[in-house]
Amino acid sequence: MPIITFLSDFGTEDGYVAAMKGVAQSACAVAQLVDATHSIPPQDVRSGAWALRHYWRLYPEGTIHVAVVDPGVGSDRRPLLACADGRWLIGPDNGIFSWVFHAARRWSAWEIAPSVRRPDAVGTTFHGRDVFAFAAGLLASGMPRDQIAPKAVDPVRWLWPSPRRSRTKIAGVIIHVDRFGNAISNIPAPLISRLGAHVKVRCRGFEVTGLAPFYSARNPGEPLALLESTGLLELAICQGNAASKFGLQRGDDVLVQKA
Amino acid sequence: MPIITFLSDFGTEDGYVAAMKGVAQSACAVAQLVDATHSIPPQDVRSGAWALRHYWRLYPEGTIHVAVVDPGVGSDRRPLLACADGRWLIGPDNGIFSWVFHAARRWSAWEIAPSVRRPDAVGTTFHGRDVFAFAAGLLASGMPRDQIAPKAVDPVRWLWPSPRRSRTKIAGVIIHVDRFGNAISNIPAPLISRLGAHVKVRCRGFEVTGLAPFYSARNPGEPLALLESTGLLELAICQGNAASKFGLQRGDDVLVQKA
Amino acid sequence: MPIITFLSDFGTEDGYVAAMKGVAQSACAVAQLVDATHSIPPQDVRSGAWALRHYWRLYPEGTIHVAVVDPGVGSDRRPLLACADGRWLIGPDNGIFSWVFHAARRWSAWEIAPSVRRPDAVGTTFHGRDVFAFAAGLLASGMPRDQIAPKAVDPVRWLWPSPRRSRTKIAGVIIHVDRFGNAISNIPAPLISRLGAHVKVRCRGFEVTGLAPFYSARNPGEPLALLESTGLLELAICQGNAASKFGLQRGDDVLVQKA
Repeated sequence: MPIITFLSDFGTEDGYVAAMKGVAQSACAVAQLVDATHSIPPQDVRSGAWALRHYWRLYPEGTIHVAVVDPGVGSDRRPLLACADGRWLIGPDNGIFSWVFHAARRWSAWEIAPSVRRPDAVGTTFHGRDVFAFAAGLLASGMPRDQIAPKAVDPVRWLWPSPRRSRTKIAGVIIHVDRFGNAISNIPAPLISRLGAHVKVRCRGFEVTGLAPFYSARNPGEPLALLESTGLLELAICQGNAASKFGLQRGDDVLVQKA
Repeated sequence: MPIITFLSDFGTEDGYVAAMKGVAQSACAVAQLVDATHSIPPQDVRSGAWALRHYWRLYPEGTIHVAVVDPGVGSDRRPLLACADGRWLIGPDNGIFSWVFHAARRWSAWEIAPSVRRPDAVGTTFHGRDVFAFAAGLLASGMPRDQIAPKAVDPVRWLWPSPRRSRTKIAGVIIHVDRFGNAISNIPAPLISRLGAHVKVRCRGFEVTGLAPFYSARNPGEPLALLESTGLLELAICQGNAASKFGLQRGDDVLVQKA
Repeated sequence: MPIITFLSDFGTEDGYVAAMKGVAQSACAVAQLVDATHSIPPQDVRSGAWALRHYWRLYPEGTIHVAVVDPGVGSDRRPLLACADGRWLIGPDNGIFSWVFHAARRWSAWEIAPSVRRPDAVGTTFHGRDVFAFAAGLLASGMPRDQIAPKAVDPVRWLWPSPRRSRTKIAGVIIHVDRFGNAISNIPAPLISRLGAHVKVRCRGFEVTGLAPFYSARNPGEPLALLESTGLLELAICQGNAASKFGLQRGDDVLVQKA
């Protein structure tokens, strides 16, 4: 039973998400539909890419991940079909798959043919429904990839922001703030361990010494730094919201140094 | 495998949505459950009707659409089972299916029998769980329609608000504001094309000349008018929120005239 | 086809929910995944327990309910697998299943073995993905319970707050405020009926005489008390928000007396 997941910035106040799922289900009645998230901030392609990074490889091979954060809909940005480590990806070619391609052992990408378009489609503003969900349904129903997207392309890919490091310091940036107000940096665990056991972590007014093994290793209200669930340095407050307390935002500088 | 979709104003903070789905799944274990939306503003039947309009026909024939925005629950408003162009509809008879009936080629409606009620149901405040989800599960499991809802009825239907037009002007209204702050009017594409290629669109402080082919055909922050995904005139801002910028609301007058 | 439901405080802005579902689906490809709710307020275990109370028994026997509101993740709080009236429960041992155990005719609980952990799991902060979803997938795929959680334990259980009563009065508390602003008390229907047909209900500035049979039995804007969908006394406003109007909160005293 093919699995199709959906990510979008459509919110759930309107019928847009249901429309997208209906088109996929009509093209492939036996597909299992999974809502990944529809709460990506409007037009925030980077947050979409970040969310996708957390789950794309956790689904079985053959899963089709549809991701639609698409401010360029209707323009000449390309509709994309890709395959990364056995999972399919469908969405606009605007960088949303950057972190997937960054993490994948191997991947390929193709442009979805202009003819792949839901019959009865009206207008040029809803490719999530008329192109991407429809293509996902066709692929799930067994249509070969090269009939849907024959032409190989080089997709838009952002560069993963690499932290700078010296013998005593690592300078990174916040790359995401999650719903709990946890601020996640681009600094991976192995870099930190090279500094030794005692480190100091700073970002704006946030400052802690040492890494915590888990959130509740500190008292409620205390700031802490730890390694989050994909192995990156995260700044948090035990049972609190670090981002709002310290005004942490995407792009803020994070410094780790020997204590 | 029967498909049941769910629309409600229950939000997702509580266990109400899960309760509704559990009842349907218990009555029909093989049903495929789809969340359409649960974020309709509380008691806003019109927004529910609008959301439903976007997806009901996109699902395969035989799909059962449950829609529960039900301020009159427990009163003498009737519980409804309807069929429109091969899709089933289940919910309160309060107008929520108006736009479906307006768009369908043919439809019929029946009153759900008082005996159709979940065993163990308590109280009179949760027909979404005790009547509608239960009826959907019975229907999905193969119980004939006339055993669930034997009596044909004439359901509540609002009149679609028709725009007024002259040779040089069309006067319509905003009928919905979506999550992106796009304001959608009741003015369909064919009416506009009769005015010729050059039109001016106004609504409160919003004013543009010409229609844009898609959102990003304008610069970020610029207002634009275009035809939305069901063919109606929509007022938007490229990568912005037109409703909050210009204070646009449901019911506002929209004027289209020759430029 | 095994059913797995998911409750969490993860929100839907990030990829965490999708990650959890992917792990379960990878462990059991044929499982039917159901989103119960992901909008429990961050770290609010009590709200999670309350939501779960509304739906756990409405699903077919054999259903696996995963519930993750887990401020103590990574500490020595135990990971739990339980069975209540034929439904499985998986989550942290922090009280979240209290109302289920309170309502169940019979139940048992076991500690999930430390070896039950997703291969490739990184860090100690995301047991929803690495332990609970993985255990749910294993159980759904047919692995025996005693291989997943061999050791019986006595789980954390809060005491249901019992109302105090005399011949003319009942003193209870608000135990939940829902998305509509309805405030639900711990006072069950049978207690009230012993006071006779005429009662007065008070809570802060909220005061009404008599119970309403349903919401719309009052005029829009009028306060009312009724029996909610699980048989408890609820304070509401017809088509309004009682909690915000009267400042009602969890823990507030509610008084019912003969009128």
